[in-house]
Order: sequence, then C-alpha cells, then structure tokens
Amino acid sequence: MKYAIYILIFLMISVGYSQDFKQDSIQIKQFYNTSLLNGKSYQWLTYLTQKIGGRLSGSQNAQKAVKWGKKELEKLGLNKVWLQPVMVPHWERGEKEEAFIITRKGRVSVPVCALGGSVATKKGGVTAQVIEVHSVKEVEDLGEKVRGKIVFYNRPMQADLIQTGAAYGAAVGQRYNGARVAGKYGAVGAIVRSMNLRLDDFPHTGVMSYGDLPDAQKIPTAAISTIASNKLSALLKTNPNTRFYFKQHCKIFPDAPSFNVIGELTGSTFPDEYIVVGGHLDSWDLAEGAQDDGAGIVQSMEVLRLFKTVGYRPKRSIRLVLFMNEENGSRGGKEYARVAEEKKENHIVALESDAGGFTPRGFGFNCSDANYAQVLKWKPLFAPYLIHVFARGGGGSDVGHLNTKENVILGLQPDSQRYFDYHHTAIDKLDIVNKRELELGAATMAAMLYLFDKYGIK
Amino acid sequence: MKYAIYILIFLMISVGYSQDFKQDSIQIKQFYNTSLLNGKSYQWLTYLTQKIGGRLSGSQNAQKAVKWGKKELEKLGLNKVWLQPVMVPHWERGEKEEAFIITRKGRVSVPVCALGGSVATKKGGVTAQVIEVHSVKEVEDLGEKVRGKIVFYNRPMQADLIQTGAAYGAAVGQRYNGARVAGKYGAVGAIVRSMNLRLDDFPHTGVMSYGDLPDAQKIPTAAISTIASNKLSALLKTNPNTRFYFKQHCKIFPDAPSFNVIGELTGSTFPDEYIVVGGHLDSWDLAEGAQDDGAGIVQSMEVLRLFKTVGYRPKRSIRLVLFMNEENGSRGGKEYARVAEEKKENHIVALESDAGGFTPRGFGFNCSDANYAQVLKWKPLFAPYLIHVFARGGGGSDVGHLNTKENVILGLQPDSQRYFDYHHTAIDKLDIVNKRELELGAATMAAMLYLFDKYGIK
Repeated sequence: MKYAIYILIFLMISVGYSQDFKQDSIQIKQFYNTSLLNGKSYQWLTYLTQKIGGRLSGSQNAQKAVKWGKKELEKLGLNKVWLQPVMVPHWERGEKEEAFIITRKGRVSVPVCALGGSVATKKGGVTAQVIEVHSVKEVEDLGEKVRGKIVFYNRPMQADLIQTGAAYGAAVGQRYNGARVAGKYGAVGAIVRSMNLRLDDFPHTGVMSYGDLPDAQKIPTAAISTIASNKLSALLKTNPNTRFYFKQHCKIFPDAPSFNVIGELTGSTFPDEYIVVGGHLDSWDLAEGAQDDGAGIVQSMEVLRLFKTVGYRPKRSIRLVLFMNEENGSRGGKEYARVAEEKKENHIVALESDAGGFTPRGFGFNCSDANYAQVLKWKPLFAPYLIHVFARGGGGSDVGHLNTKENVILGLQPDSQRYFDYHHTAIDKLDIVNKRELELGAATMAAMLYLFDKYGIK
Repeated sequence: MKYAIYILIFLMISVGYSQDFKQDSIQIKQFYNTSLLNGKSYQWLTYLTQKIGGRLSGSQNAQKAVKWGKKELEKLGLNKVWLQPVMVPHWERGEKEEAFIITRKGRVSVPVCALGGSVATKKGGVTAQVIEVHSVKEVEDLGEKVRGKIVFYNRPMQADLIQTGAAYGAAVGQRYNGARVAGKYGAVGAIVRSMNLRLDDFPHTGVMSYGDLPDAQKIPTAAISTIASNKLSALLKTNPNTRFYFKQHCKIFPDAPSFNVIGELTGSTFPDEYIVVGGHLDSWDLAEGAQDDGAGIVQSMEVLRLFKTVGYRPKRSIRLVLFMNEENGSRGGKEYARVAEEKKENHIVALESDAGGFTPRGFGFNCSDANYAQVLKWKPLFAPYLIHVFARGGGGSDVGHLNTKENVILGLQPDSQRYFDYHHTAIDKLDIVNKRELELGAATMAAMLYLFDKYGIK
C-alpha cells in the first residue's frame, strides 16, 4: 500500500512535470516564432543606429537615445515608464587623432584612436622613443627606464582561448591601467595594441583610468590597430630607436545629467518581486554602437514586447532597464542598484545582454547551487533552439551591482567569435548585425525570464 | 572472489577509459591550438578567393583551382597526391542579365541572375504577364493557365525554422523544378524568389533542372532578389496585369574534362580502411565561393596539415578529396564513389564540410545505432570547444555517395544563421569569413577524424 502511494505521488509529479514541460514548450515556441516572424528588435536597432548613432555618455546623442527609449517604452503598453536621473562622466574625443611611426626612411601612418578618459596631447602632439612591453607589471619593473618615452603595450589577445571574452579579460588590463602606470614613472605617452584578435586597421577605443595620479602625471593614451602594432614591433626590432608621434584633442567636461530609462510590467501575483532585463543605452563614439550594446537594448525591449504580444501576463514585476554609462563609469548600473536598495526592492533575477547580438548559445549564471540546479532542469526546453551553454559565473557590468547571495544574476552568452572584430571600433554598425541572430537572442531571453517568472527562484 | 575480479575488470576499464580520455583531450587541444595559433586555412582561403575567385565547373578558374589544389596538397608531405578525371557540365552565364517590372508608371529595375543550367532568353528578352505562385504543385494545378506567362515562384524560406538549412530544403524545390513544370504548361519564363531569409538586393543563383523536357519547352529561368520579390508581389496585388521583362545570355557547352583532387596519408595499421574528408572545389560564378565551399576545402586541407603538424600518424588511410562539380551535377562525388566501389576500397568514414566556415556547432551523422552510440561517448571531449550538436542524419551531397549500411557519413554543422545571406550570391567573398570561426571548424573536423581513426567504427 505504501508502495502504491509512492507510485501515485511519483506519477502525479511526473504528469504535473510533463504537463508543465509541454505548456512551457508551447509558450517558448511562441516567443521564438513571434521574434523570428514578427520581431521588432531589428527595426528598433535600425532606428537607434541610423537615426541616432554613437551615443557616448554626456553627449547630445545619448540624450536623444534617452528620449527615444522612453518614447518607445511608452508605446509598449507597460504599467509604468520613467527616467531615473544619474550624473555621468562627459568626455569628448574632439578632432580626429593622428599618429605615425618615425623611421629612418620616413613616416609610417598609423590608425589610432584615443582611449576614453585620456587627456589630450600638447598642441603639437607627442613625439618620443618607444619602449615595447607586454604588461603593466613589466612597466613596474622597468620603473624610471620609461621616463621620457612612449610606452607601447603590445600583449596580444590569446587566440587559443575559445571564448573571446576570456582573451579580452586577460589583455584589457594594459588598456585600463597602462597610462596610469607608465605615467607614474614619467613616460610621456602610452599606446596600446587594440583589443582585437584579428589583424586589421580599425583601432579599438575603450575606457582607461588614471586612478589617483596627480594631473602632472596624466599622460595621453591611445589604441593603435593590430596591424600597426605588428609593424611597430617589427620596426623596433630592427631599430630600437624608432620614434612614435601621436596627437589627440580629447577634453574632459564636468559630469553631466543623464538617465536610466525604465519600464515595468507589474506582476499579477508577486508584484514586489522584481525581474530585471537590460542592456546599456550608451555606446562609444566611433560608430553606431550596433553590437555594443544597441543589440542588448533592443533585445531587452523585445522581451517585454514578446510578453505583451503573446499575451503572457507575468506573475512578478518585470523591469526593463536601459542603463546609461556602462562604457565609461557604470554610473547607471550603480544608481539603479542604489535606488533599489534604498527602496528595499526585492530583485530576484537580473538578466543582461551586453555581449553582442550574435547567435545565442546560452547564459552564464551567478547564483546559488539550488538556483543553478533549477535552471539546469530547464535546459531541455532550450534544446530545440540550440541553446546549450548553462555556465556558472556571469551576469554583466550593469546588473552585477544587484547581486546578493540569494538572487540570480545572469548574462546572455551569444557566440563570441566575431565580437572583438567590431567592439569599440568605427565598424560597429548595423550592417554587422544579422537580424535572425539578434531575434534568436531576444526570444532566448524571453524564454528564460518567462521560466523565472513562472517558477520564481529557490 | 568473483566480485573482486569484476571490480578489477571494472577498474581496469575505467582507468583505460580515463587514460584514453586524457590522451584524447590532450591531442584534441593540440589540434585546436595549432589551428587557432598557427593555422593555414585562412591563408589558403585568401589565395583561393583572391587569386582564383569564382570557379564554376568547366571554367578556366575551375582548372586553375585544380592545379592550385594539387600543388598545395603536394606540399603537405602526404603519401600520395593525384587527380581523378571526371567529365563535368559546362554552363556559362554570359553577359550580365537584366530585368524589370513594367508598371503603369514605368519600369522598376530588378536585381536578377540566371539559374545555373537555364537557357538564354531570345535576343530581345522575354516580356509577359506575371502569375505569382507559391509552389510547383500550384503550377501543376493551374496547368494551361500559365501558358504565355512568366511564372513567379514566391514562397519565402520559413523564418521560424531554427536551422536555416531546413528552411532552404523546404523552399528550394521551386528553384530546382520551377522552370521544368512551368515550361511543361507553356509558360515563357520562370522567376524565383531568392533562397534567402533576409531582405536584400543580392539575387541567389543555384542549380535548376529541365528533367526530360523537350528543348521546345525549356524556358529561361532566373532568381530575383527578395526585396524585388516583395515589390513585384505588392504590385501584382494592385495590378494583376503587371508585366515582367528579363534577358539573359546563358550558354550550355559540351561536358568538359575536369578532376577531383585527392591526397592520401596512408594508414600505419589498417591502410585498407579509408577515412575521407572533403569539400567541393567548384563554386558558383557570381563571387569568390568563399563560404560555399572555399571554407570546406581549406578546412579539409587543414585537417591533414594538422595531423602532420602535431605529428599524429594515422592508423587508417586518410583521404583528402577536393570534389569537383558539387554545384551543378555532383559528378565529382559520384565518380569518387564509383571508383571506390570499383576498387573495392573500404570507406569506413566520410566527412564533408559544405555548410560554410561559421562557428562549428557539431555534426550530423548518417550511421548505425552502434556507431551513433560510439560518437555520443566522445561528446565530452568536444565540450571545451562548445561543440554540442551530435545529430542523427546528415553528411553531404559529395560524401553521401559513399554511404553504405555499415559506414559513417557525417557533415560538419556550423552555425547556420548567416549562411543564406551569402550562399550563391555576388557577396560570397572572403570578407564575410571570420578567420577564427573557420579555424575552429577545421580543428573540430580534425578532432572527430582523429577519434574515428583511433577507435575505428563499430
């Protein structure tokens, strides 16, 4: 008899489970079909990139993007849409930079761009001998030997790492800290090999920091293309006295007022449990911010549109956040988290898309074992869509600030191979985004948040 | 005691298994590292696309590609390299086609390209009323009603299918059979919506067939771009009498002599067991045949180069085959299989790469349950490289001819989302191939063939 009860319970659970599975499968299929057949993400991205374009924090374009975001969110039929004020850094590149290598035979022109946050060179530019290094540590060891020189950080991203994000993480310290450390020892400039796995002539900008350096030690810093980096390195081998020249006109302005753009679909059953989905609205200034992070913005918007379109009414409150200033300060992400804490809002889940609108492969989860075990159970629901990466660790620089021990922070993991071909360059434009890849990502995000909304967290 | 023996056997198997796993992991890592850090695939592809270019069967470029392939294979230090003669179709597009829609307000120019194998229009082109259909079946039903008209096949590829190859398979019948069926009922031309999921203005060529139609019923046929297809369809809705004009100059020549290019690394232990790896050397004429199938060619070449470079000496004979004429006849694939059968060569495995050099996701296997069970055991070895698709069914149109009940026919399955953006168009050029994606594919192929070589088939 006891046995019979166990079997009955088992059957009830199984049937319940399989009915849930069936229902979830149907719901998820609807998200994918709607995104692929009648999606809006690509249309939004077209507007954002073609009508607004690059939108660095503090710029007029960033303000335009805020207005556009608010207007579009208002059209979605959400319960609330608002702007959350946040002060952001305001740095401008100014006139196009120039650079060349000075060899015995003449000048070799170099594709260059100032790093975000860098000071300008003096009016006539900087000319100096070059000292090639492969890490910040090496400069610390060289110390005073870099005085009067231009330090050339030339450690390449590691091509044998399968996930390009890992290769980026292992190389980007040069860009972020390079000028600070070189400046401390009296270098007159710092140039960095672009954070790029391929050889091309599109230099990559990106944020840098002087830390606590006094103004007098702040030296101008720029990225040069990977092809130019190889050229310079080869020339230095034949002539260690090879000199380099660069000129840039960047300006740092006082912090500027800006906003996170927020929309909410209020939960029907647990309105006080919040699920966030978002990307960052700001972008670097060199191009249109299509992959970084226009893609994440429009995918996040599409998640809520999909919920509305298929008539799914969430149990929990879903917050769509278009974060401001991820690129050079993360002020938006920090402010959103600060306000959430101040208001004691219970954020149970936060999902970010900031790795490009490429074919989605899965997610990285920053969560407890119990929550990870739960998401693993959902894996079969994603198999028809070739979503297979359910990794531990992940999230994103904006939603990361919401991390507690109890909640789930996750990041969409698209295929990473092409990301650094475009990231922070003059070619991060609409034409390098594939509509289907973008739409698949949006549907994948909707599917995952639907499951979190339905089942909650552990 | 008996128990102890069982445990001992179990332990021995486990240790053996885990030692194999470790050894295989190390070997596979070496393939990936070598391909990503010191690969040759992209360099080969650069030559093939930039120095030779499009290479349709029977063309001078196809002959150049044969010479190049043989020369490169000879440099690889294989045991044998040879050319296998095969007669191939020889069709030429001739002068650029032209087409327009004739509306009340004037002409609307249409991006167009003749389908491979089509006849020319008469000298002044064809002008006729258009009848839009969505399948060959619909034309069979219309019968004589299409007489004197241009039949416009406009069934789109299904965007909600996740694998674009499935969407292609479901739509391509219109292209292949469209003119045959329309011609049978007296239509004067057949135009087909390009086999493309996105909206653009790059028409897609591809093979068509008149079957057994008498010459008098052979009508000219062409693809028009997806944007033009939508335009024409919309115009037909407002005016069903809208006419269409197209002109093309194609010529069919007598079959021409050509070759499969073959190289062999002879096996050390089982030289009479053959493992084939290949792609097709021919391509359509509109561009450079970079993704289709330059990628498959150089990846296959790279597999053997990787074996040589890391010093792996295969137990079985590995045959590298650059097949001729996959695009419009598959004569190379058929001839290779015919000769193999004639010589009673035991082909245990044949792997094809003909789905583009995009990020590899896995393989499709055409094999017995026992062999499928074996490959599933290898899946964990591929996990570090995000290779996760081990599907049943697959292979490819060249290696498919080698299929027996006993052997394993498999095809590389790269990410499919972008393939039909380029396939058979004027933009299938080197710049749309990502070097890393290509290299990952080559390493994945090497890893799989290494395992088949080491463990054989069931």
